[in-house]
Amino acid sequence: MSNSTFPEIAQALREHQSFIIMSHVRPDGDAIGSQLAIGHALEQLGKTVYYVNEDGLPDNLAFLPHSENLIQPKGEVLDVEVAIALDCATKPRLGDNALKAASKAKLWINMDHHISNPEYGDLNYIDSTSPATGQILYNFITSEGFPLSDVTRDAIYVAVSTDTGSFQYGSTTAETYEMAADLMRRGLKVGQINAKTYDSHPYRRVELLRRLLNTLQLSEDGRLADWQLVYSTQIALGLKPEDSEGLIDMIRAVDGVEVAVFYEELKDGMIRVSMRSKNKEINVCDVAKVFGGGGHAMAAGIRTDGTIESVRDAVSAELRDRLDANS
Amino acid sequence: MSNSTFPEIAQALREHQSFIIMSHVRPDGDAIGSQLAIGHALEQLGKTVYYVNEDGLPDNLAFLPHSENLIQPKGEVLDVEVAIALDCATKPRLGDNALKAASKAKLWINMDHHISNPEYGDLNYIDSTSPATGQILYNFITSEGFPLSDVTRDAIYVAVSTDTGSFQYGSTTAETYEMAADLMRRGLKVGQINAKTYDSHPYRRVELLRRLLNTLQLSEDGRLADWQLVYSTQIALGLKPEDSEGLIDMIRAVDGVEVAVFYEELKDGMIRVSMRSKNKEINVCDVAKVFGGGGHAMAAGIRTDGTIESVRDAVSAELRDRLDANS
Repeated sequence: MSNSTFPEIAQALREHQSFIIMSHVRPDGDAIGSQLAIGHALEQLGKTVYYVNEDGLPDNLAFLPHSENLIQPKGEVLDVEVAIALDCATKPRLGDNALKAASKAKLWINMDHHISNPEYGDLNYIDSTSPATGQILYNFITSEGFPLSDVTRDAIYVAVSTDTGSFQYGSTTAETYEMAADLMRRGLKVGQINAKTYDSHPYRRVELLRRLLNTLQLSEDGRLADWQLVYSTQIALGLKPEDSEGLIDMIRAVDGVEVAVFYEELKDGMIRVSMRSKNKEINVCDVAKVFGGGGHAMAAGIRTDGTIESVRDAVSAELRDRLDANS
Repeated sequence: MSNSTFPEIAQALREHQSFIIMSHVRPDGDAIGSQLAIGHALEQLGKTVYYVNEDGLPDNLAFLPHSENLIQPKGEVLDVEVAIALDCATKPRLGDNALKAASKAKLWINMDHHISNPEYGDLNYIDSTSPATGQILYNFITSEGFPLSDVTRDAIYVAVSTDTGSFQYGSTTAETYEMAADLMRRGLKVGQINAKTYDSHPYRRVELLRRLLNTLQLSEDGRLADWQLVYSTQIALGLKPEDSEGLIDMIRAVDGVEVAVFYEELKDGMIRVSMRSKNKEINVCDVAKVFGGGGHAMAAGIRTDGTIESVRDAVSAELRDRLDANS
């Protein structure tokens, strides 16, 4: 690891005038929040900023002030000096159109909290001890004296709150809470912003949950739980990708369940499998690899041919072998 | 308001030797957490402490260290000098058996964050600006130099976390976050304790949610949503009171819904109605009063004769009048 320093990055930002700010495809709160946080700080300094995300702005983050400036690239090339990649573990995960939009940039800055980030920028700042890229940017902005506007304040809070499961995950640090306290002292309306972040979803998400629960299957020993979603239901409900986000936690959290699996039929007929493990001895990444997938030990995925039933039979058998070997 | 001071309460605690510590019936995280927090501090000082709750310890809080010492009173009278009531807005809400257990106490201390608390103690400390009684106790313990053991630390965190919806509600203050940071610096294992608090529930809770969702009705204009639970389902699933806690938030959070209502058939055949409003102009306490119930403007309840259908018809009509008058 050979990180650039905050002062080096700050100098590069101050010396240039035009920026494209990007994050990963299928953006979450830390992706969009980080983009808005540093982007608005640069705008306050009179810089030209393009906020670009391959997949555009998810509906559930459209409440963020200034998010209306985020554009979904369609193949155009932007005339910018500097590309900033945030919260994006690999360069390809920025997306093809976003990469094309950034292709004129002569300097790449890469700031992230994913340990696997290969430092694909000219200047890199990777801190895997930080629970969110938003928290790295908070430290950067406050220590380097960049403007912390209301837009930046709210964006940082949402970035960190969403990436820590509302300050719950083990990645949360004492500094995370101190940051939240500081943002409140800077005027953050904590009840309002959390209501918009967590307490608001379209009816179709509730209907989706109902349909998923009606397919829930729990193994006889209670250690394996799964549910499924056929493509026709996605069409019937007009589902968007973010609608199913986090729902699997509901079955993962059931006492006794060690592995929770979500089987989803995609538009192209492929089956997507999302697996979550609660047992460190059951490595779902290993199971995913059997089917050409990948991920992490506790959260992994597969994309494969077949029907939901045939894929479920095969994946369940692999999981059952591992569960039985660990009983 | 004529609060006693922290030093006055601290002196009373130091001067006495035996304590009964109580909280409200149907206890939640702030109730049990507050009991354990101050109780263990007193035990560390060599005092005799009885932890008493009318309804005993809910399963979902049994992970709290030291909670196994909490007893459910059965009519006995305890030989104690001091009674401490925590997080309990009125004295009767301590419960008849708890009050009997405390009947020998010659000094009553009442600490709470409910604005309506009528100061029924000999020494009272009511701070309605605090999001949780646990946060008041944290301030008390740290400012008065009482021991802050690991038991007290974890209990305070859970008390405040649960009463703020994991640091989300508008009642959360900058001091709340600073407290959490301090508890982490004192060794709190933030990931573990939150997993136990939020990421663990019995299968019957998921099955309950499925059944509730299958009764969900949304009004044509999308402003009123309700679901219902018959008593036979409660028996079939072996439900406990805490199993339904917070589930109504799922329908309250639907975009466009202004009032969410839960109709529940009780063991005695009565119908309990829980109403949640998101619109400040729709005062559900006023609606509850029509049926002999009460509560707050945004959260109110009714307990009445009838069938779920007849009660639902009557309550829906009252709500519809108010919704139509505010459209």
